[in-house]
Amino acid sequence: MNHLESLDAYFTSNREEHLNELKDFLRIPSISALSDHKDDMQKAAEWLEASFQKAGLENISIDPTEGHPVVYGDWLHAEGKPTILFYGHYDVQPVDPLNLWESGPFDPEVRDNKLYARGASDDKGQVFMHIKAVEALMNENGSLPVNVKFIIEGEEEVGSPNLEKYIEENKEKLAADIIIISDTGMYGPGKPAICYGLRGLAGVQIDVKGAKGDLHSGIYGGGVQNPIHAISEILSSFHDKEGTIAVEGFYSDVRPLADEEREAYRALNFDEEALKEEIGVNELFGEEGYSYLEQTWTRPTLEVNGVFGGFSGEGIKTVLPAEAGAKITCRLVPDQDPEDIVKKLRAHIEKHKPAGVTVTVTEFDKGKPFITPFDHPAIQAAGKSYEKVYNVPTAFTRMGGSIPIVAAFDEILNLPVVLMGFGLSSENFHAPNEHFHLENFDKGLRVIGDYYYELAQFAKDDLRK
Amino acid sequence: MNHLESLDAYFTSNREEHLNELKDFLRIPSISALSDHKDDMQKAAEWLEASFQKAGLENISIDPTEGHPVVYGDWLHAEGKPTILFYGHYDVQPVDPLNLWESGPFDPEVRDNKLYARGASDDKGQVFMHIKAVEALMNENGSLPVNVKFIIEGEEEVGSPNLEKYIEENKEKLAADIIIISDTGMYGPGKPAICYGLRGLAGVQIDVKGAKGDLHSGIYGGGVQNPIHAISEILSSFHDKEGTIAVEGFYSDVRPLADEEREAYRALNFDEEALKEEIGVNELFGEEGYSYLEQTWTRPTLEVNGVFGGFSGEGIKTVLPAEAGAKITCRLVPDQDPEDIVKKLRAHIEKHKPAGVTVTVTEFDKGKPFITPFDHPAIQAAGKSYEKVYNVPTAFTRMGGSIPIVAAFDEILNLPVVLMGFGLSSENFHAPNEHFHLENFDKGLRVIGDYYYELAQFAKDDLRK
Repeated sequence: MNHLESLDAYFTSNREEHLNELKDFLRIPSISALSDHKDDMQKAAEWLEASFQKAGLENISIDPTEGHPVVYGDWLHAEGKPTILFYGHYDVQPVDPLNLWESGPFDPEVRDNKLYARGASDDKGQVFMHIKAVEALMNENGSLPVNVKFIIEGEEEVGSPNLEKYIEENKEKLAADIIIISDTGMYGPGKPAICYGLRGLAGVQIDVKGAKGDLHSGIYGGGVQNPIHAISEILSSFHDKEGTIAVEGFYSDVRPLADEEREAYRALNFDEEALKEEIGVNELFGEEGYSYLEQTWTRPTLEVNGVFGGFSGEGIKTVLPAEAGAKITCRLVPDQDPEDIVKKLRAHIEKHKPAGVTVTVTEFDKGKPFITPFDHPAIQAAGKSYEKVYNVPTAFTRMGGSIPIVAAFDEILNLPVVLMGFGLSSENFHAPNEHFHLENFDKGLRVIGDYYYELAQFAKDDLRK
Repeated sequence: MNHLESLDAYFTSNREEHLNELKDFLRIPSISALSDHKDDMQKAAEWLEASFQKAGLENISIDPTEGHPVVYGDWLHAEGKPTILFYGHYDVQPVDPLNLWESGPFDPEVRDNKLYARGASDDKGQVFMHIKAVEALMNENGSLPVNVKFIIEGEEEVGSPNLEKYIEENKEKLAADIIIISDTGMYGPGKPAICYGLRGLAGVQIDVKGAKGDLHSGIYGGGVQNPIHAISEILSSFHDKEGTIAVEGFYSDVRPLADEEREAYRALNFDEEALKEEIGVNELFGEEGYSYLEQTWTRPTLEVNGVFGGFSGEGIKTVLPAEAGAKITCRLVPDQDPEDIVKKLRAHIEKHKPAGVTVTVTEFDKGKPFITPFDHPAIQAAGKSYEKVYNVPTAFTRMGGSIPIVAAFDEILNLPVVLMGFGLSSENFHAPNEHFHLENFDKGLRVIGDYYYELAQFAKDDLRK
């Protein structure tokens, strides 16, 4: 019996028990955003502690932070083998509006081979799978093929305000060769995916001031600059008509897309018609020369998130307003640097600001883009494990959004990050009736177990970034 | 004793009594906007009725409308002579905030030769002067040198909702050769002015719709048109960098400025530095090739009064909004037609709307521009009357704003309109501590009286437009 057959046998015979254990975990309403649930956060951490013990992890601790605790555990006896740092979170989103749930958010229920509960997919279910994978291997072999460290935090849904400090302060304890995070999704039902890149973020607010008060547009109009005209001119200067960003040097650090990546995305046969239907537009629009997936995964953006100025109530008010403004965020891709991009935005605004007004620029929080090269052995090995279980090729994808904590790991520990997602975008995380497809629960357990063996084949140095 | 000396003698000896009468008029809190003051509106109308009688006007009536009544009176015995239609209003603005008034808004008080009260300048004081001019002439001569008709309405401060209908329905009764309105201002202290042109108005709202709901700017950003980008592109397309409106055909019906007009404006030595100080800007900005007065008096504008879209709260929200929009009004000059301009705006927007969004255009109310040629004999004669009394040249000016009722008179009765203003822009009409400089009250009485004699020299046909 090879290791995959052995994992399969173990997970099959224990399925009922595992599901019951997961339901216990899901019954704890560990909503990090609500202070009423402070005790539940502690309960969930203690549940993890017990679960770590049962799996055979060691050096287990519930590490306090200024917010909710981080639960740590490790197993470090695979001498000479790579060390995996696994990150997940035990906190969940609030559950409002409660009346839209078909079964209670904290009364887990299986319907149609889907497990319904808050946290089923995001992220308790996925965290649980990694614990059970360790437990299975320890049970079968009394040891693991690689070293593992687990950190499960309780504040991901409120922006991980204390995690960066925790990582900084525990750099040595957390030292590893690769990081695995299971908090993202598959490409689609039956379509496994490894997300190897995320976009970063840089943003500014632009404020335009004209006269010291609103002016009558009849009396002064035509002789005084209108701040709305000014902000419109600035905003429209950011892109050319083809959707390309016109800020000087904006693209200069963008890592070119590899032919293999373009080919891989093309092979996904992304359904643009379905997307148009879903979001309700007649046509898509983006930078020329790139497909929709390339545009949203691999190209930087400059998006105006808000514009304001003058009168926006019903009807007409003939005002020449004293001020106007806009909020802008850029999504960044490797190897763009948020600080550098903000500098270039400032220079562009300075160059394009019209006469007759003063313009100020305020910076928002920044986040670096993240990428683990898709041909990195840890990424490719994960792809292999998926393929063995799902019997279809693994998609190597990126995501247009930003997961700040990934960038923080990348930045502080400087390790390759493997995002192994088992969720589906249809699973209502952050919404009523969150659920998790048990098909991916079952298959995922086997993928994770197999991945430990795959990683054991590498020397530690093979996995470095 | 010529007629000016005789007027002077009459107004000098009756000054105290006239002021007391005006104070009685000002004591009536005829605030048209507040339904609590309905009785006061009637009282003010009756006060006028009595005052018309005292002056010697005939056929006096308080004509009901759907709102507050119009007070009518005439004197039509100057056979073969021109007929003047005088328009004014007896309603006043609300008085909030009351605590900022140094004396009660309806307790008229003279301080430093200024009469303080709501309506002192706008418009009861100026209406009163015209009645007293009639009274003076009737008193001296038992007749007037011209025919006069007075209509004083009670809804000017709420947009004259019933006046247009009243004029339409009483076209014959109101038939005249010229219209005089005293509801505007002088160019400055000691500087009489005749305003012979006002700008018209045409406006639209532009609504841009993208996806059916707000989208996450990370996930979709770069592949879907952003309605804020679209509205910015449309708005910035309306002007070139020099402030000229770039809408095709926008200027094609603009009547060229006469050299005499440009010369006259130049002679006013408009103080741009003082304006910059007053409104708080470092530099003025307008269409190239025109002075500030030319820009705001004689050139059309396209002003964005409001822009909206996406998130405008504190901080950042990485949204790609579903919609954005803007409100626009154009100030129009002779001979632009509001209907035609809106058509051209629509064509421009259609031509410049970016891909990936739908754009709708909604029209606002329209108003035609107004002009009585500055060399029209009625305008020049009014200038002469001012000069005789003020001993300085009269400025022939235009105004950047729109007075819808002037356009309505112009449109329905098709008569030359003479705007004889005696107010000063510093007199706080519409604000606490409204007042009227009695220097202009005294001089204005004489100007108006003299103007009747000036007009009597013309044949009716000389005055036609």
